[in-house]
Amino acid sequence: MVKIAESRLESLRQKLKEREIEALLIKKSQNVFYLSGSWTQGRILLTQREKFFITTSLFAEEARPELSGWQIVVQKDSFEEAVLQICKKLRSKKIGFEASHFSFEEYEKLSQIKAALWIPCRGLVEKERAIKDTEEISCIRRALRVTKATFDYAESRLKEGVTERELAREVLYFLRKDADEESFPPIVLFGERTSLPHGRPTQRKLKKNELVLLDLGVKIEGYCSDLTRTIFFGRVKEKWHQIYHLIREAQKDALRQVKPGVRCSHIDKIVREKIKKAGYGEVFLHGSGHGVGLEVHESPSITFKSKEVLEPGMVFTLEPGVYLEGEGGIREEEMLLVTENGGEILE
Amino acid sequence: MVKIAESRLESLRQKLKEREIEALLIKKSQNVFYLSGSWTQGRILLTQREKFFITTSLFAEEARPELSGWQIVVQKDSFEEAVLQICKKLRSKKIGFEASHFSFEEYEKLSQIKAALWIPCRGLVEKERAIKDTEEISCIRRALRVTKATFDYAESRLKEGVTERELAREVLYFLRKDADEESFPPIVLFGERTSLPHGRPTQRKLKKNELVLLDLGVKIEGYCSDLTRTIFFGRVKEKWHQIYHLIREAQKDALRQVKPGVRCSHIDKIVREKIKKAGYGEVFLHGSGHGVGLEVHESPSITFKSKEVLEPGMVFTLEPGVYLEGEGGIREEEMLLVTENGGEILE
Repeated sequence: MVKIAESRLESLRQKLKEREIEALLIKKSQNVFYLSGSWTQGRILLTQREKFFITTSLFAEEARPELSGWQIVVQKDSFEEAVLQICKKLRSKKIGFEASHFSFEEYEKLSQIKAALWIPCRGLVEKERAIKDTEEISCIRRALRVTKATFDYAESRLKEGVTERELAREVLYFLRKDADEESFPPIVLFGERTSLPHGRPTQRKLKKNELVLLDLGVKIEGYCSDLTRTIFFGRVKEKWHQIYHLIREAQKDALRQVKPGVRCSHIDKIVREKIKKAGYGEVFLHGSGHGVGLEVHESPSITFKSKEVLEPGMVFTLEPGVYLEGEGGIREEEMLLVTENGGEILE
Repeated sequence: MVKIAESRLESLRQKLKEREIEALLIKKSQNVFYLSGSWTQGRILLTQREKFFITTSLFAEEARPELSGWQIVVQKDSFEEAVLQICKKLRSKKIGFEASHFSFEEYEKLSQIKAALWIPCRGLVEKERAIKDTEEISCIRRALRVTKATFDYAESRLKEGVTERELAREVLYFLRKDADEESFPPIVLFGERTSLPHGRPTQRKLKKNELVLLDLGVKIEGYCSDLTRTIFFGRVKEKWHQIYHLIREAQKDALRQVKPGVRCSHIDKIVREKIKKAGYGEVFLHGSGHGVGLEVHESPSITFKSKEVLEPGMVFTLEPGVYLEGEGGIREEEMLLVTENGGEILE
């Protein structure tokens, strides 16, 4: 991990050089982990020659063994004060900061540090994170295996009268046996409530012959999975079978188009047009997918607006859904890996 | 709830008037809930006469029944585009935004909307939230009861060989029976690891005659609890008994000083001096406490730097701790309510 982190730091330093930025201030916890290999709470100030890990006294003991090779700065008064002290020594002028993660208020405080010129930067680490290496993919595969076992378990617990919340609780307990934690609060919906793309579990009880929608993910060493299954609990209207088939076909069509060099917006288009043709264009309420890694939603974005292009090592979801307000919905979600020549469903 | 939210909106509008701000843009989910009574994902634009709830198509179905009386704006292109469309109709000039919650990047996008002058605002809703009403306190009391039952349960599950992670998993399963969810990932630490104030559960196994530190909280209708207990699993050194006693005495001393009008920094001082006198000043690694409500850390802050003053209805923790690196630590955490004449431990 240390070795990996070191090469990631070098790659980021190269980017900074190209942008004539002398240092970068990193706040987002997943970015901090990606570069340091530690989940200890803190922020990074990276220069061409040095690497500072800024934390509080609460985390100092934890930080020391996990961050060997780093200069650990334990802030006394405030984060900005600690940054100021480092800046004085560095004499770096142009320092980038993560503009999407520092709040406007934090920026205002940083900009009081006149020793530096503060340059807003966007997605520098996130862009690197979008391409997964073998070790990262292996964590994601492990997360997927736990998730699939969880679906099997959940299905075995389906019975008339169980509530969405009860099932969600059982699911959480089960998945935490082999995973570190869930990657997002489980979505467990019954009947007409399956039309809520991000609905939260309630006391709604399961009845015979209803739809069940489960959207689950777990984390293994920080890496997320994200899968959705719609289950027919008993007999459901023929319409739902047709929609299910449509959605699976849309996924297959899109998968065939996945390869390096293809635009993400094109993948979205394949899915969207298929669903539109079947008359459900207006009720496919979201993008076709999103990258997954240390965050459950990350780069690349598989939407019609996306400017991103597929590259080998990218991992993203394909999740067409049809939502009929008051009636129910169907979504199926898989995770895909972009390979050198095409794409595969990750398992 | 609707009625409560309405009076909260009026109180906020009054504040805006005083500041000569015509509208306020609110992002933070707890603030959105506080003002709307809904946990549906979205943001609020509040003017003197109108209230807009801006959301995406993902949440539109959910929003409609939960937000009657609100103008629900389903953003098509982007959040900023939706704000722009509202601004055009409003002709409000001075619009405040939550400077601690909007990122610098989001601010940059908002500032492209030239129809408005964007005023950074800090803690407007948070300040209101610091004073709890009867209904809020009742939710917190319920959350505390579940947390205490969870401590009893956890204690009953202590046995040689159980890992921190196993116990954390059991604890989560137990607490979700009666609570909506945990208010933060449970802190479950054994032995020398109890010296990590915010340590994360590992595969460390419990041995006889060790310290066990549990820091747990749950949410009831969005309201959090936050309590810590240090348990002696078997016999531990006399020193730990002394430290435990010291910490409980520091809490008692501080509780006696709690009443409206007292500075939060004074409460911190009482705790800090007591611990310092006993020779542990350097290893009391954090503030004496923090407010708890819709967030597990909110206003007021009980630290030596705090400028806040206690008011009736404030709820905060008192959590002295002594952390001996490599040996272990003891922390006890209670939640207090500021009453008209003094303070009480919330139960």
